[in-house]
Amino acid sequence: MARFSRRTLLGGGVVALGAAGLGAVGGGAAVASRAEPEASRIVDVHGVHQAGIETPAQAFASFVALDLAEGVDRDGLAGILKVWAEDSRRLTTGTPALGDTEPELAVDPARLTVTVGFGPGAFDAAGLTDLRPSWLRPLPAFSVDRLEERWSGGDLLLQVCADDPVTVSHAVRTLTKSVRSLARVRWVQRGFRHAPGTRPEGESMRNLMGQVDGTVNPAPGTPDFDRQVWNPGDPAWLAGGTSLVLRRIRMELDTWDELDRPARELAVGRTLSNGAPLTGTEEHDDADFEATDRYGIPVIPPESHIARARPRNADEQFLRRGYNYDDVDGAGLLFAAYQVDVDRQFVPVQQRLADHDALGPWITPIGSAVFLIPPGFGPDGYPGQTLLEV
Amino acid sequence: MARFSRRTLLGGGVVALGAAGLGAVGGGAAVASRAEPEASRIVDVHGVHQAGIETPAQAFASFVALDLAEGVDRDGLAGILKVWAEDSRRLTTGTPALGDTEPELAVDPARLTVTVGFGPGAFDAAGLTDLRPSWLRPLPAFSVDRLEERWSGGDLLLQVCADDPVTVSHAVRTLTKSVRSLARVRWVQRGFRHAPGTRPEGESMRNLMGQVDGTVNPAPGTPDFDRQVWNPGDPAWLAGGTSLVLRRIRMELDTWDELDRPARELAVGRTLSNGAPLTGTEEHDDADFEATDRYGIPVIPPESHIARARPRNADEQFLRRGYNYDDVDGAGLLFAAYQVDVDRQFVPVQQRLADHDALGPWITPIGSAVFLIPPGFGPDGYPGQTLLEV
Ligand code: HEM
Ligand code: HEM
Repeated sequence: MARFSRRTLLGGGVVALGAAGLGAVGGGAAVASRAEPEASRIVDVHGVHQAGIETPAQAFASFVALDLAEGVDRDGLAGILKVWAEDSRRLTTGTPALGDTEPELAVDPARLTVTVGFGPGAFDAAGLTDLRPSWLRPLPAFSVDRLEERWSGGDLLLQVCADDPVTVSHAVRTLTKSVRSLARVRWVQRGFRHAPGTRPEGESMRNLMGQVDGTVNPAPGTPDFDRQVWNPGDPAWLAGGTSLVLRRIRMELDTWDELDRPARELAVGRTLSNGAPLTGTEEHDDADFEATDRYGIPVIPPESHIARARPRNADEQFLRRGYNYDDVDGAGLLFAAYQVDVDRQFVPVQQRLADHDALGPWITPIGSAVFLIPPGFGPDGYPGQTLLEV
Repeated sequence: MARFSRRTLLGGGVVALGAAGLGAVGGGAAVASRAEPEASRIVDVHGVHQAGIETPAQAFASFVALDLAEGVDRDGLAGILKVWAEDSRRLTTGTPALGDTEPELAVDPARLTVTVGFGPGAFDAAGLTDLRPSWLRPLPAFSVDRLEERWSGGDLLLQVCADDPVTVSHAVRTLTKSVRSLARVRWVQRGFRHAPGTRPEGESMRNLMGQVDGTVNPAPGTPDFDRQVWNPGDPAWLAGGTSLVLRRIRMELDTWDELDRPARELAVGRTLSNGAPLTGTEEHDDADFEATDRYGIPVIPPESHIARARPRNADEQFLRRGYNYDDVDGAGLLFAAYQVDVDRQFVPVQQRLADHDALGPWITPIGSAVFLIPPGFGPDGYPGQTLLEV
């Protein structure tokens, strides 16, 4: 497909959508004047980086993978991304998308962020296979994996987060519908954390095993974070971009619940009550992996999850920003890791955990996908522009 | 099963659970002292009626149907209900359940309510088939129905609502696990509304068609509400109880979105911008079904959803308290209606809508279940006691 327009992108009901679009603009304006979104409900869509990564985690997330339709080429892909950029500019500021068919559901942005990613297939479709970073491919198979197709892979990713589940639902529908003739939804994975405002400031979320989750994480804005998460410009078009590893990890709660609390705390290396390391008292105390009890036994077992996951060197660090899921197929974690280089930072840690992890028997990876997250963009740009317009 | 105890009810990992339970109490206490739940986060579990019906709708709901295990008799059923009553007393006040394996997830009740219901099978299991009200059975088949087994029926219901999705998830797991050897989960349907505190006071929620939903509804505490919803004591053991019709209704959003706004507003009989009737300006204005335009055509079409659904007499009214769903199988409404008598109040309206409803082409019932909601209970009681101990 060499050329496209907003109209052809919309596919199906173009004529009717024209009318709905008209109405939508009117309706949206009326609603917006009634309940102007506060600045605190708006996360800037523009910047050096895409939003939704450094952004303090919103309460709800949908991760959506799409596959490109047969014959979509570089122009077609750019078309999709331009539509998404435009939709995002509007939706994140409480403005209905162009042709938004439910404009009233767009009124409250609720800190909406839309983060766009590329799977390996996007590079092939764009005729840019040569430019694909070597780490952008399915992860190597790990012995612990029990992967299901229906939660794995994808040519494109939309990560949609907000503090209102209705906002997320509407944004996902709008974004996927806008490009329906060019890309079809492969899977949607919905996650949640505690409702907005219910966790004490500075405390990490709890996952559905009851653990405090997300304690040891680089802090946005620090040199550490920038080094681990944001591509420094190698290759140049990826400067300010990153990568996402999304693992759907089922929790084996029935057997987990048969363990007593001390055994559970030893499996992780941290307390259940407040997430402190077994050698400390507060969540953010440093773990002391050298400390032993009076029999000379390490207080934090070397096979515990944190001892195994702990980076062995400065290269093996990444940002975790996961969500709980509780769905028809069980409950678990949508484990989301962001890093400059998947092979260098993520894989060694996952390999070590696959080799041995005291928590391993109760966490089963059932889905896996890797995406490149292109750099941020400005008011006239779109995600991936630096790649597609080289 | 003639006798049971808390231990046998727990089934499976009894020994290990003993230890976990011990730890749980300690952990729970520690946590509770750290973040004592405010009164505003607690809905009283005791009363003439079960909570979760008159309660202003929380943001999240899980409807869980269970089927009784082979051989569970009246005592077994009473055992389940006693456990649920005890679990509910604790969880709704931010106290971990007995043997709670994730006590930290119980700390924030977030207005948790647990509402228990009986399907037809519960009466048979209890040997009380004679006492089953005639309306407690699957609804008559309607021409619009496309029902799927996986969303229909059930011997028992748990309706679990709260303002935090983690609280709901933990409560559902705890309640279902507590009775695992006696009842197995048949289906779980998860729903949501806007995040707590994001809708202006007094405004109804929006559903995923973008409509204001829930406008014409009896107001809790009024004689009208009491008459329509709460059984007056016929039979005596049901005084203060009610019934729930739960319909999973898929929205055909792709074709709905092809309609322009005027057509959509005519389908319902209300505006999309604020839910006012087409003859009014504010959401709660009375609809005028007699009003005509200058050509003599009714402003609110007689085939519109509200004109068809509108009660024809005082008998045909009920409380609606539904939730949005957006799931692997699509999006729609978990339509929940509460009434004294399903046959008298609900069925005629549903029949009329099945016969003709301008909104009908875009709403497809794919699941259906009817439950009796026994009266409320006190500190020493449990839901269904008035039935089981006659
Ligand atoms: C359902 C699956 C998982 C659960 C429930 C889980 C749980 C936890 C918990 C409770 C902690 C301690 C608190 C914290 O620092 O966040 C932790 C730490 C960590 N986890 Fe996991 N985790 C899971 C999967 C994974 C996977 C798949 C990886 C990487 C491949 C991973 C990497 C890490 C790292 C790097 C840390 C920090 C270690 C340190 O202290 O330096 N986790 N995890
Ligand atoms: C997905 C399915 C449905 C949708 C989207 C829907 C939507 C609506 C909307 C927008 C209204 C107007 C606002 C309000 O009063 O709440 C309404 C009213 C109403 N609906 Fe529905 N509805 C659905 C299914 C049903 C079903 C299955 C029934 C009963 C069998 C029903 C019964 C009613 C009643 C009684 C009213 C109030 C009518 C009046 O003004 O007196 N609805 N519905």
